[in-house]
Amino acid sequence: MQTTNLQKKLNKLRSNKVFEIFVISIIIFSALVIGAKTYEISPTALWLVHMLDWLITFIFLTEIIIRFLGEENKRQFFTHGWNVFDTLIVVISLIPVEDSELAIIGRLIRIFRVLRMVSIIPELKMLLNSLLIALPQLGYIVALMFIIFYIYAAIGSTFFATINPELWGDIAISMLTLFRVMTFEDWTDVMYETMQVYALSWTYYLSFIFFTAFAFLNMVIGVVVNVLNEEHEKARKLEEHDENELSMENLDKKIDELKQLILQIDRSKV
Amino acid sequence: MQTTNLQKKLNKLRSNKVFEIFVISIIIFSALVIGAKTYEISPTALWLVHMLDWLITFIFLTEIIIRFLGEENKRQFFTHGWNVFDTLIVVISLIPVEDSELAIIGRLIRIFRVLRMVSIIPELKMLLNSLLIALPQLGYIVALMFIIFYIYAAIGSTFFATINPELWGDIAISMLTLFRVMTFEDWTDVMYETMQVYALSWTYYLSFIFFTAFAFLNMVIGVVVNVLNEEHEKARKLEEHDENELSMENLDKKIDELKQLILQIDRSKV
Amino acid sequence: MQTTNLQKKLNKLRSNKVFEIFVISIIIFSALVIGAKTYEISPTALWLVHMLDWLITFIFLTEIIIRFLGEENKRQFFTHGWNVFDTLIVVISLIPVEDSELAIIGRLIRIFRVLRMVSIIPELKMLLNSLLIALPQLGYIVALMFIIFYIYAAIGSTFFATINPELWGDIAISMLTLFRVMTFEDWTDVMYETMQVYALSWTYYLSFIFFTAFAFLNMVIGVVVNVLNEEHEKARKLEEHDENELSMENLDKKIDELKQLILQIDRSKV
Amino acid sequence: MQTTNLQKKLNKLRSNKVFEIFVISIIIFSALVIGAKTYEISPTALWLVHMLDWLITFIFLTEIIIRFLGEENKRQFFTHGWNVFDTLIVVISLIPVEDSELAIIGRLIRIFRVLRMVSIIPELKMLLNSLLIALPQLGYIVALMFIIFYIYAAIGSTFFATINPELWGDIAISMLTLFRVMTFEDWTDVMYETMQVYALSWTYYLSFIFFTAFAFLNMVIGVVVNVLNEEHEKARKLEEHDENELSMENLDKKIDELKQLILQIDRSKV
Repeated sequence: MQTTNLQKKLNKLRSNKVFEIFVISIIIFSALVIGAKTYEISPTALWLVHMLDWLITFIFLTEIIIRFLGEENKRQFFTHGWNVFDTLIVVISLIPVEDSELAIIGRLIRIFRVLRMVSIIPELKMLLNSLLIALPQLGYIVALMFIIFYIYAAIGSTFFATINPELWGDIAISMLTLFRVMTFEDWTDVMYETMQVYALSWTYYLSFIFFTAFAFLNMVIGVVVNVLNEEHEKARKLEEHDENELSMENLDKKIDELKQLILQIDRSKV
Repeated sequence: MQTTNLQKKLNKLRSNKVFEIFVISIIIFSALVIGAKTYEISPTALWLVHMLDWLITFIFLTEIIIRFLGEENKRQFFTHGWNVFDTLIVVISLIPVEDSELAIIGRLIRIFRVLRMVSIIPELKMLLNSLLIALPQLGYIVALMFIIFYIYAAIGSTFFATINPELWGDIAISMLTLFRVMTFEDWTDVMYETMQVYALSWTYYLSFIFFTAFAFLNMVIGVVVNVLNEEHEKARKLEEHDENELSMENLDKKIDELKQLILQIDRSKV
Repeated sequence: MQTTNLQKKLNKLRSNKVFEIFVISIIIFSALVIGAKTYEISPTALWLVHMLDWLITFIFLTEIIIRFLGEENKRQFFTHGWNVFDTLIVVISLIPVEDSELAIIGRLIRIFRVLRMVSIIPELKMLLNSLLIALPQLGYIVALMFIIFYIYAAIGSTFFATINPELWGDIAISMLTLFRVMTFEDWTDVMYETMQVYALSWTYYLSFIFFTAFAFLNMVIGVVVNVLNEEHEKARKLEEHDENELSMENLDKKIDELKQLILQIDRSKV
Repeated sequence: MQTTNLQKKLNKLRSNKVFEIFVISIIIFSALVIGAKTYEISPTALWLVHMLDWLITFIFLTEIIIRFLGEENKRQFFTHGWNVFDTLIVVISLIPVEDSELAIIGRLIRIFRVLRMVSIIPELKMLLNSLLIALPQLGYIVALMFIIFYIYAAIGSTFFATINPELWGDIAISMLTLFRVMTFEDWTDVMYETMQVYALSWTYYLSFIFFTAFAFLNMVIGVVVNVLNEEHEKARKLEEHDENELSMENLDKKIDELKQLILQIDRSKV
């Protein structure tokens, strides 16, 4: 009812294919500008890049305003995480940053504009959402893995801190070292060093690799089984729908009707 | 019958949500204390940590006693592996350790307190149990892998011991070196060294990598298939239950009844 | 209708098993000649290899001409990608290259002859096709991964370019460095270097490893689920076909006929 | 009929549980002796090990003779691969080897005795057989991978041979280097070296990693799908057997009988 004429037009524009492609092009262009900045460029080119940057910010701002005005229910607009993200990215880019400290934040914000690609293309949005949804399912196994890491890091920094403080100095550094061992990154160098003091310390590394590999494997299997179950569930529902009219239940009823019919005939004869 | 009033109260306390959260908090707190110890801290802070340590030990002891007294059947208490584990951890922490040799054991015991987290949270307990249950199924493939390792280590230390005794000195070191090769950790350095003496020794490494990768792959597939089969079995049982009343068997019986009915009618007419 | 006598003969020859084996042998032989060239060989042997090379080119040319003349519809011949590939490989090998610049192209073309193996053996052709077909399905996840890489590379070259320009100099080099980190190749060396300036830069690497590993895992699971679904679909179609004559639908119809029959009997009596 | 009294006794002995455990113990003991030899031991211990070695050889010989005499059909004995393997291992260990050249063969043979474990324990025998059976199914993908390796190795040794002959000297060395790249073992060192001459050579490595990773992934998926299909097939057969007496076919027949019956009744009335 409240929808004004302007709103209708903006809404139409918002779902316009050409408009969408234009916004995507601007995002790709802004990504290229960000990339260009990492190369050493002449002052003229830098000035050009700077101007382009402001142009992009302006276009993004216009686009957000169009999307916001086009929304019927203004309150609902900010309940969508991606809208908040888009608005924040654009608004923060508007703040002129010259100070070297803040300049870095300004540059970071400009980099995160590339993520707007995800918020524009529905398929990418769905994909990222599905990835994030899968995470909580892994909660307990991640907790178990953290406990394994914590215990091994505590043992590691207790015994090996004096051998190499850079690797085992405190529990935080030890956890980083253990993550390195888990990725098999020069883990034997770490091991050979501690084996010169504690000859049996290979048991520490091998048991750690075994536990984390096993927990990781279970995590992967957990995800695979979840995905397959969902697919299976979908297939089952589809199947059920198909056989709706030709089910066992149906046959059963028909046979019952047949029985009643025969009984009636029989009775009518007597 | 034997359940005293006190026991009832303790049992109630044991399954109290607030009590559980309190114990979990204490475990997390004790983990943080362990972590704090790995940093260089002032003597005052060290003294505080020491005091906190005794407090934690005391709380744990109280909690174990509550759980023990709350248990109706005292004998059954120690048949659960986790109860034995909890009691041992707490009792050993009570022993005052000053001697440098025993001090390390004392510190280790305090680290293992973090594992109490697993014994308190049922989901983690189940997860760890399910991991441990999966192990025996892999028994034979682990045995096969050990045989592969042993044979290759025996060959390796026979031929390469003189080239680099640190890597191939005896069969135990050779097995560690082979594990390193399996994780692809600087394995070419090991290979290039032996190839200078035995030019064809690359066949040794490549065949080893092939065998272990293949055995490992089969282990993973074995676990995946086991998990999927279990899921499938569960789904099948659920389905069977649903179709209980509308099975083929049922239709079969009904058709038989129909036949009998028709035959009776026929006979009654003649 | 247009098929001449010669064409028939050539077509017969083309599908002849002996002819096929002969062509495969020539390809293998040409692969061996390519391999031989990479060893230091005497001038005489080099001359021999050179002659063999021309002989192989001649045989390949003859084979292509036979296949082309044997084709009924000349236009269709070049619609098959593999035919175009084969013709190009053979025609370019005919150009005599002496200039050092072009000589390398000549050598490359001779190497790509080995790929003709794939175009000759139908099973390999099918396998490669199935691999290429699977790629577009992965489109969006590859796009998402590229966005992750691009953002991290932009951040990396913004912060770390001054620390090590060889690894983080511009966005292109940064992406290569990130690919290196993704393969866990000496990634800690890269990390420790930047951690000396930005102590918290480990969050950058760990989050990157986490995101790419998770995206990669999803890619793998996507492929596995696709393959399993296809297999399932095939199995389902096969099953359906088998039960064609004994379906629920069939039983349903028969029971309906039975009902009609009984009703007719009943009516005829009245 | 030909089975003598002795044969019966030997056959009984052969399948005796105690005898089997005795043989397994001897194999484990012989494995330990092989392991002991890799350590530096005193001459007395060496002499003891030497004596034990002869004792083990003698026991193995006796066991083979018992198994051979116990076999009813002597010809069939050598048609089993594992019997031939066992006999060869034992017979070759009998040859006294003093010459340093042959001594190594003697030591190798003694190491391979550990493999007798596989031939004795049926579960391990089955497991190894199932691994070997899975190989031919992977034939074409291995062929495709070999073609990829060969082409890349030919390109690599053409372009990079002058840069580092130790890595790219000829096609064989290049294939070994590419295998190293595939395992991500210090592959960036290899790449950075060639990038100094050919700046775009990163495309060579990245495309190679992409192709091999993709082919490898397909190999793994192929194996998983095969295993799952076999499991599915087994489950389906089991199900079919269960429903043998209550199939659709059965219901169909019964309904047909019903129809015939009704028709007969109808005709008999007319």
